[in-house]
Amino acid sequence: MNYFSSNFKLGILGGGQLGKMMLYDTRKFDIYTCVLDPSPEAPSRLACDEFNVGDLMDYDTVINFGKNVDVLTIEIENVNVDALETLEKQDVKVFPSSKTLRTIQNKATQKLFYRDNNIPTADFMRFSDSSKINKVVDNGDLVFPFVWKSARFGYDGTGVKVVRNENDLVDLPNVECITEKLIPFKNELAVIVARNEIGDVKTYPVVEMEFHPEANQVEYVICPARIPDAISQKAETVALKVASAFEHVGLLAVEMFQTENDDILVNEVAPRPHNSGHYSIEASYTSQFEQQIRCVLGLPLGDTKSKVAGVMVNLVGADGHTGDVVYKNIDKILAMEGVTPHIYGKKQTRPFRKMGHVTIVNKDVAVARKVAEKVKKSIAVICE
Amino acid sequence: MNYFSSNFKLGILGGGQLGKMMLYDTRKFDIYTCVLDPSPEAPSRLACDEFNVGDLMDYDTVINFGKNVDVLTIEIENVNVDALETLEKQDVKVFPSSKTLRTIQNKATQKLFYRDNNIPTADFMRFSDSSKINKVVDNGDLVFPFVWKSARFGYDGTGVKVVRNENDLVDLPNVECITEKLIPFKNELAVIVARNEIGDVKTYPVVEMEFHPEANQVEYVICPARIPDAISQKAETVALKVASAFEHVGLLAVEMFQTENDDILVNEVAPRPHNSGHYSIEASYTSQFEQQIRCVLGLPLGDTKSKVAGVMVNLVGADGHTGDVVYKNIDKILAMEGVTPHIYGKKQTRPFRKMGHVTIVNKDVAVARKVAEKVKKSIAVICE
Repeated sequence: MNYFSSNFKLGILGGGQLGKMMLYDTRKFDIYTCVLDPSPEAPSRLACDEFNVGDLMDYDTVINFGKNVDVLTIEIENVNVDALETLEKQDVKVFPSSKTLRTIQNKATQKLFYRDNNIPTADFMRFSDSSKINKVVDNGDLVFPFVWKSARFGYDGTGVKVVRNENDLVDLPNVECITEKLIPFKNELAVIVARNEIGDVKTYPVVEMEFHPEANQVEYVICPARIPDAISQKAETVALKVASAFEHVGLLAVEMFQTENDDILVNEVAPRPHNSGHYSIEASYTSQFEQQIRCVLGLPLGDTKSKVAGVMVNLVGADGHTGDVVYKNIDKILAMEGVTPHIYGKKQTRPFRKMGHVTIVNKDVAVARKVAEKVKKSIAVICE
Repeated sequence: MNYFSSNFKLGILGGGQLGKMMLYDTRKFDIYTCVLDPSPEAPSRLACDEFNVGDLMDYDTVINFGKNVDVLTIEIENVNVDALETLEKQDVKVFPSSKTLRTIQNKATQKLFYRDNNIPTADFMRFSDSSKINKVVDNGDLVFPFVWKSARFGYDGTGVKVVRNENDLVDLPNVECITEKLIPFKNELAVIVARNEIGDVKTYPVVEMEFHPEANQVEYVICPARIPDAISQKAETVALKVASAFEHVGLLAVEMFQTENDDILVNEVAPRPHNSGHYSIEASYTSQFEQQIRCVLGLPLGDTKSKVAGVMVNLVGADGHTGDVVYKNIDKILAMEGVTPHIYGKKQTRPFRKMGHVTIVNKDVAVARKVAEKVKKSIAVICE
C-alpha cells in the first residue's frame, strides 16, 4: 500500500502529548491521520486530519473509530482491548496487538509473562486483593521492605508504594496487586526497541534515568547512559528478548534496573513512544515518533544512532501552583546552547502535572548534562 | 509578552509548504497560529489554530486577517504590501516589514537597493518595458549575452531568461524588467541570516547549490559548501551586510554567486524560510523554521551550527506525469542511511511541480552527497 498518496488512514487511540509529537511526523510524511481522545481540548486536536471525541475504554466507540482506519496504533495503554481484538478479526492492522496490550495492562500478567519467557525481573507475588497480603507477611513468606503495585492502571508513582512495615499496609487500596522484592539498584536504564511486522528490529542506545538525590524522582534522562559498554550490551540483549517474546510491532520501551551486582532486571514496558525517548527528536537520526510510524506502516526502520548526546528534563507544574500556566524564564533557557523546549499545550497547571519537556543536546554528554542543570534551575511552570 | 501561555496570536500570510513546516515548530512551542491562504487545500490547513481562505493580494482581506493577530509574518512575498503598511501603523508587528517587502517584490528596486547600500551585485539596467531593450542593444550600450528578468513575480526560472541574440528578444513578455550582465560563476552559494528586533544576528553556514551538469538546474543543496574558508567568510560578510541594510527582522536567505575571480555578488534575497535552508530541520541545532519563530517573536536566537552535514534534494514531478501523485520507491529511499523525506501534501503532480524534498544527513558531507545521488536515482514523483 502506498501510504503517502492513497486513501490510506492511520488511526491513533489517544490524543495526548505523545500523539501530538507523532503528528509532527505524520504531517512530514503527509500521512492521513484520525485521532480519538476523550477530551475536546486534547493536544492532538490540531494537526490530525480527523479528530474524534470519545471514550477510549468504550467498546463501541473504539470499534466505530477503528473500522474507519487501515492501521490502528495507540499513544496510551488504557484502551478497550476487546474492541482491538474484534478489529483485528476484521482485518484492521492493530499495533501493538490486543494480545500484547492485554498482557501489559495487568502488571501481574506482565510479570508472569516475563517469568514464562525467561526474562530477568524482580521476584514477585500476586494477590487478588491487597487484604490478602497480611496473611503472607504473618506466616513469613513475604518480608519487609517490599514494593506494592496495583495490577491495573498504575502509572509513574500512582499505584506504586514501598511498604516498609505493618503500618504501610493499612492504607493500601484493596485491589488486585503484586508485591515485588525491593531491589537496590545502581541505575535505572531504558532501551527503546523498534520492530516492524516482518521482524526487522533496531534498538536505540541505552538511556539512564538520573534521580534527584533527595526527592527520589527521575530528574534527567541521559543518552547515552554513562555506564560500561558491557552493561549496555546486556541491557540491549534483554530489551530485544522482551520485544521478540511479545512479537511486538511498533516501539517497545523497556525500563530496567542495573542492580548492585550488575544484573539487569526488567521493571516494566510501554508499547509506544515513551518519555525516555523524547531526546531522540533532537539527538537521533530518526526520532522515536517517526520510527513508530515506520514500524506500524511496515516501512524500513530508520537509523537509531545519535547525531549528538541528549539530555531530557521534564517540565512539571511547580508545587503550590494551580491555574493558568506561565512558563517563567522560558526566554532564559532559549538563550542556552542546544536547548529546545516542547510545550504540550495544557492551559492549566497543577502541582507535578506533566506540562512539557526540554531537550538539551551537545556533542559532549557532560556539557549537555551541565546545561540541563541550568535549565532545571531556571525554568518554573507556575501561575501568576 | 508571554507567547507560550497568553492570548497571543501569530499570523502567517501563506499556507504553503514553508508555512506547513513552520507549524511543526509553532506546535512544539504551543504558539497560537492563524493562517491565510487562497486555497482551502493548502498544506497549512492542518496544524494551525485558525485557517482562513482568502486572497493574499487583496487589501481588505489582509487587513481583516492581520488586525486579529499580534505578530504577522509571511511564507511568500506576494502579499498586499499596502495592507501591511496600514497594519504597522495600527501597531501590529509585521516581520518582514512592508518597506523591505516593497523593495524585494520589485527586482529593479531590489537591485537599486544593493547599489545604494554598496552591496556587490551584477551590473544591471532597468526598463519600464521589454520593448525598450532593442534600442539600447542597437546603440551598443547593452551587449549579448545578458540575463533578462521580469521585475515582478519572477520565481525560480519563471520570469528569467538568458538572452543570447536578437531572436531571444522577440518572445520576451512586455513588462517592467531588468537586464543583468551574465556572470560566469564557479558556485552559487546561499547564506541564511537570522536577525531579531533588538538586532541580535546569526548566520547559518554557507550552503552550495550544485547544478546538474547538463540540465543547468539546482540538483543538490549542500551544507557546508565545499569551498575555502576565506570564500565562506566573504559570503557571510556580504549576507550580514544585506540583512543589516534592510534592518531585517526574521530570516533573510541571501543567494550569491562566487565568480571566476572569487568575488561574491548578491543575486537575490528571500525574506523568509527558504529552500536552501531545508537541510536545517535534520542537520542544524536550530531549524530555520524554529529560528524564524524565534526572530519574529523577539526570542533569543538559536544556535545556527550543524550537528551533522546535510544535503537536500527537491522532489519535483516527473516530466510527462500529470495527475494523482505516487512517490515511487519511497520505501527504498527510507531504507538508506540518514534519509528523511518531506512530503508537502499536494495531491496532484505535474511536470517539475515542487512536491517535497528529501534531506540526507551524515557526519561526512561526502557520504551524504553520495547517498543523495542514490536517492535522486531511486525516487520518482509520478502518477500511475
